[in-house]
Amino acid sequence: MSLLSQAEFEVRLAKVRLLALDVDGVMTDGGLYYTETGEELKKFNVKDGLGIQRAISCGIEVAILSAGSSPATLHRAKRLGIQHVYIRVPDKLVALKQLCDRLNLSLEQVAYIGDDLVDIPAMESVGVPITVADAMPENQAIAHYITQKSGGQGAVREVCDLLAKQRPILHASSHLSSPYQSI
Amino acid sequence: MSLLSQAEFEVRLAKVRLLALDVDGVMTDGGLYYTETGEELKKFNVKDGLGIQRAISCGIEVAILSAGSSPATLHRAKRLGIQHVYIRVPDKLVALKQLCDRLNLSLEQVAYIGDDLVDIPAMESVGVPITVADAMPENQAIAHYITQKSGGQGAVREVCDLLAKQRPILHASSHLSSPYQSI
Amino acid sequence: MSLLSQAEFEVRLAKVRLLALDVDGVMTDGGLYYTETGEELKKFNVKDGLGIQRAISCGIEVAILSAGSSPATLHRAKRLGIQHVYIRVPDKLVALKQLCDRLNLSLEQVAYIGDDLVDIPAMESVGVPITVADAMPENQAIAHYITQKSGGQGAVREVCDLLAKQRPILHASSHLSSPYQSI
Amino acid sequence: MSLLSQAEFEVRLAKVRLLALDVDGVMTDGGLYYTETGEELKKFNVKDGLGIQRAISCGIEVAILSAGSSPATLHRAKRLGIQHVYIRVPDKLVALKQLCDRLNLSLEQVAYIGDDLVDIPAMESVGVPITVADAMPENQAIAHYITQKSGGQGAVREVCDLLAKQRPILHASSHLSSPYQSI
Repeated sequence: MSLLSQAEFEVRLAKVRLLALDVDGVMTDGGLYYTETGEELKKFNVKDGLGIQRAISCGIEVAILSAGSSPATLHRAKRLGIQHVYIRVPDKLVALKQLCDRLNLSLEQVAYIGDDLVDIPAMESVGVPITVADAMPENQAIAHYITQKSGGQGAVREVCDLLAKQRPILHASSHLSSPYQSI
Repeated sequence: MSLLSQAEFEVRLAKVRLLALDVDGVMTDGGLYYTETGEELKKFNVKDGLGIQRAISCGIEVAILSAGSSPATLHRAKRLGIQHVYIRVPDKLVALKQLCDRLNLSLEQVAYIGDDLVDIPAMESVGVPITVADAMPENQAIAHYITQKSGGQGAVREVCDLLAKQRPILHASSHLSSPYQSI
Repeated sequence: MSLLSQAEFEVRLAKVRLLALDVDGVMTDGGLYYTETGEELKKFNVKDGLGIQRAISCGIEVAILSAGSSPATLHRAKRLGIQHVYIRVPDKLVALKQLCDRLNLSLEQVAYIGDDLVDIPAMESVGVPITVADAMPENQAIAHYITQKSGGQGAVREVCDLLAKQRPILHASSHLSSPYQSI
Repeated sequence: MSLLSQAEFEVRLAKVRLLALDVDGVMTDGGLYYTETGEELKKFNVKDGLGIQRAISCGIEVAILSAGSSPATLHRAKRLGIQHVYIRVPDKLVALKQLCDRLNLSLEQVAYIGDDLVDIPAMESVGVPITVADAMPENQAIAHYITQKSGGQGAVREVCDLLAKQRPILHASSHLSSPYQSI
């Protein structure tokens, strides 16, 4: 893990306006379920979903950047209200820069969670590079934070709660008596 | 875990007439399987099913209160003979109070198993708030009982067996030589 | 676990002509995957499949006795060449006795693997009652052998290998150069 | 594990031109998901996929040799760009020899990963027999390398990285800024 004092980490965390997520191995345990017709299923996590909704309620933009091509990711993103969803991304850093430009954010304002080599360039460029407990060693070597949970086991929730702890909830969904809903 | 003597816990347990269950993370491990068409699958547990049937045989009402919207939950509930099933519940405490009114029960007569923030208000209001081994710390802090098993791994069975231990079986299904059936 | 010397256990094992299997929690980890249309999927184990085929090659009859009703079980049994398959079994001991009568076997010649209360009467009646590492305590209390593996994790293979160790392979499938095939 | 010095192991590894893979228990955890219509699903691993693509980029031939018959395997192989795919293989050594003849390779130039009895003859014949952490003891006894990861949990990736470490990447896919893509 990259050396960083707790104080410096919290300063960087406070600047975050965009949480960018890899999918396979981060929002899932890396499992890809194949049917006989070639359909691909993914297993997401309900606690991650609640965390993402909480982060959005705190005014944080959430994005998905996946090199994969599964429609399952699009459906999960839609269910969670994630507005920035990119699949079949050949270069995640390029895509991330384009998104930051559009949102008028700097890379310093981005927390990125990735777990494999394809995520390294983006992780090296953002303000808060994060990886998961069962990530590749290369990712763990450059992360500022390694989640205690593994991918698909609540790792994303852990990061969302870190971000939310510093922030008030800006708006609650109109149809909820609580800002939280199991998703 | 909220402090409570074993004797006091057993007194409260003996009063329970309704077992109310969260779904994701309690009856499952929190996993949400997405297909390419956006269908959502859930993984339930056969031992939980047997426990729920046993609880019903002992005269305990069983209810499901889910903030999620998956038809999979409805199918599982139907298979198990659970009569009180609520999905897309925005506020679980409100729904629980309405159910108690209908069943002429007080909240003191309810055991509620929940594992995430959305379950906290209901857990704080019932006679026996229960959570699971892998629940959020906030839920564990207010529970009177934390199951040894994790969600989807037999946590619900563990609670059903606690409840059944104090109670005789009231009626057996007519087509079974034993009141238990693998479901 | 029921007290039995290793020598006595091996004597009993040598008499076994029929291996009877519970499904959920024995051939699977107890997980029941529900789709939105109420379809039920089960996760079987390839090593168990190879073991069952090996047992059949040694001349052992293999039977499935499930209280559940899932067609998935029928498909798995067909793939493995299991000839005696009973689903929706209200009383497993009754079904087992009928099968033994038909096969002209005594219950002493049966090894039965079960993991929950519904399996107890059958386990108490057969020559070799077996359970799995993650079975209910009631089943573990009366078993003569508890597998090191959990249900769905190779528990059935472990038992098949115990049985096969004592027996020569009687016939190999005609289309295989080896009696083993990944199934 | 078969005795072999680290130096001898690396010499053998350097000769490898073909990586041959069993499917169930190696590319998966051995789980076979059955639907009610008898369809069989398998759970593959995204990190394995990235490793296989990396090995192919280094000029290593990759083959799948499965005794099973699931179309899911064909779809996964196609997604990964694996060119040599054999399902319903009655004798893996025979199939492997035919493939080596066609590719003009010797068995000494093959690394084979297998986890069960059906893989033993092929493992005994190749230059680098490999098995996984949760393989059968018979396979572990003859392997020159046992992966730290279990089947379906990144075992294949571990081997791909061993092979890639010794080799430069020969060509990158034209549409990628990096040779790695999440698959």
